[in-house]
Amino acid sequence: MQHCLALAARAVGISNPNPAVGCVIVSAAGEVLGEGHTQAVGGPHAEVMALRDAASKGHGVHGATAYVSLEPCAHHGRTPPCCDALIAAGIGKVVASLADPNPLVAGQGFARLRGAGIAVEVGDGAEQARELNIGFLQRMEHQRPWVRAKAAASLDGITALPNGQSQWITSAEARHDGQRWRARACAILTGIGTVLQDDPLLNVREPEGVALPRQPHLVIVDSRLRTPPSARLWSVPGRRVLVFGVAPPAHQEDEGLLQRQQMLQRRGAEVLLLPPAQAAQQGGAQRVDLQALLQHLLALPVNEIHVEAGATLNGALLAAGWIDEWLVYLAPCLLGTGRPIAALVPPLQNLQQAGRLHWHGVERIGPDLRLLARRG
Amino acid sequence: MQHCLALAARAVGISNPNPAVGCVIVSAAGEVLGEGHTQAVGGPHAEVMALRDAASKGHGVHGATAYVSLEPCAHHGRTPPCCDALIAAGIGKVVASLADPNPLVAGQGFARLRGAGIAVEVGDGAEQARELNIGFLQRMEHQRPWVRAKAAASLDGITALPNGQSQWITSAEARHDGQRWRARACAILTGIGTVLQDDPLLNVREPEGVALPRQPHLVIVDSRLRTPPSARLWSVPGRRVLVFGVAPPAHQEDEGLLQRQQMLQRRGAEVLLLPPAQAAQQGGAQRVDLQALLQHLLALPVNEIHVEAGATLNGALLAAGWIDEWLVYLAPCLLGTGRPIAALVPPLQNLQQAGRLHWHGVERIGPDLRLLARRG
Repeated sequence: MQHCLALAARAVGISNPNPAVGCVIVSAAGEVLGEGHTQAVGGPHAEVMALRDAASKGHGVHGATAYVSLEPCAHHGRTPPCCDALIAAGIGKVVASLADPNPLVAGQGFARLRGAGIAVEVGDGAEQARELNIGFLQRMEHQRPWVRAKAAASLDGITALPNGQSQWITSAEARHDGQRWRARACAILTGIGTVLQDDPLLNVREPEGVALPRQPHLVIVDSRLRTPPSARLWSVPGRRVLVFGVAPPAHQEDEGLLQRQQMLQRRGAEVLLLPPAQAAQQGGAQRVDLQALLQHLLALPVNEIHVEAGATLNGALLAAGWIDEWLVYLAPCLLGTGRPIAALVPPLQNLQQAGRLHWHGVERIGPDLRLLARRG
Repeated sequence: MQHCLALAARAVGISNPNPAVGCVIVSAAGEVLGEGHTQAVGGPHAEVMALRDAASKGHGVHGATAYVSLEPCAHHGRTPPCCDALIAAGIGKVVASLADPNPLVAGQGFARLRGAGIAVEVGDGAEQARELNIGFLQRMEHQRPWVRAKAAASLDGITALPNGQSQWITSAEARHDGQRWRARACAILTGIGTVLQDDPLLNVREPEGVALPRQPHLVIVDSRLRTPPSARLWSVPGRRVLVFGVAPPAHQEDEGLLQRQQMLQRRGAEVLLLPPAQAAQQGGAQRVDLQALLQHLLALPVNEIHVEAGATLNGALLAAGWIDEWLVYLAPCLLGTGRPIAALVPPLQNLQQAGRLHWHGVERIGPDLRLLARRG
């Protein structure tokens, strides 16, 4: 099962928005007959890859045991059901880490295998399999994406000096590590403030000589569509860019907004104008309705959203209870005064209002620390 | 030597401002004949304690090996030289972790032992012995105290909500751990802002039924002597309280300041009025000259200073380059907006100006993290 999970881990960032799954087929004598993991969307699932691998090596799999990190699918999606492939191949036993909460599968995979006389065991490696697919599972179980907010800060929680300088508070090692987290997300979410201040690419850099199977979508919260046509982010080929702005009131034309919308569309962006958020309407400046935005992303679909934003958008997501996990790279220095990780407006009135998190992971990355603080 | 260092660790917080030292006397057959550690100031040092322990058990120590975590002293201080005691007892060999940088010792201990025909080895356990006496060694080697600034903050570096609420951001376990660090310091340093805002005791709490051998001195940076006579900090018996204020200009009387000074003295405080800091004179409000304050503390003497202060004093110490180590308890929550760990005025203009630290230690303490970021 550990080998199976290692295969599943290789599919992370490739199979999106499908779950990352591994499969190893083992003979009664303990010999590995075939192995595989989920391919990019539309390609074969892990079970079919493993069966093909066994066949290509001339191994018969009759009576063998298939280890899979997620319940085999039982429905016709872009590919035929994996259950049927396992049954047809004469597999004798299936050991699965997790049941698939996808309502199209939801125990039907196991039921169909058992109906065909195949022994089924569930639970081995469940925690690791869940971690690999935390966004997919949250989408299936709770109809919301897994939102991970990333920040790079000093020990005193500062992400940029008052003059805006932020490159670089953390090390090259930390930035390299951050790439792995971008890569596993379905979408990277940022705000217009970060676009204007840092002019970032917000892509996954291709390792030397390796073509990436996909780039996460880039989603920009940009109420007045101020993303410049000259921004560096347009230079990344082969990714969807979605810009969310605020729609002008009915019967009220905004010629400038329309022109900027058309410009962004010519740049290849999908521009979505949403009615303004309720709370912000009272405040003055109209803000993008994050609830509506996330529902829109959920429908794309997206599993994990990787947020790289400034204090304003981070604060708005935090206040709305949308952040499941903070990924913070902490540099061993103090900057004393500068821009915070998140700004809550209005501020908390008492400490009990702060959302409860726990330290899920603490690692040294080069000279820095990587902290994962997770809800619940 | 590990046992010797464990004995030395027991002297931390007891022997101040003397170094914390352990001693174990072992026979040629490997039997422990006697052991001990430094007692409170004026009491016996580790070597004498170990020799007495051996004698009380009826063990002869002729030709035995003495393990000590610091070079035995060679001068008459409050106690006779430990060297002479070891020589007189007929010890055959001394294994020491560190040479004593105290100019009154500085290799003379080893020289005297060797002169008496005793074999001397140095270096075993040096790193641990150094850690136990980091303040003593810094005072001896660099004529400055070791300054450790403590903070309890959220993941985004906030130590209190905008309304001042700070109790409690971190857990009872973290606060309990913080007591250990207070206990090992010679002095606890705070500012008038913290005194007025939190009304803290800033003492070492006595464990149930255990009388503490000493309380660290309490040092308050209080330019205008505003520490209230009703503050809780006066309720701690048996400790020195030093209040540092700013002296009024020559030939200029300040009746209110004088009255407050007399009130503080009646409360048992030592009040020291220093000429104002140069930089602050230009700024308006007159500030205590931290350089002069630390020189004064050094002369008391103090080894380790434990700072529990707010953003203003932390920022001033940080800007002046006085903080050797940050001890930060980090709670897994975000508070969004509030009071920072340190405020640098003026702010940094570029990231290269930030002092270089490294992560010296990272530990989980209950639900929180304890981070030690050290200079160099």
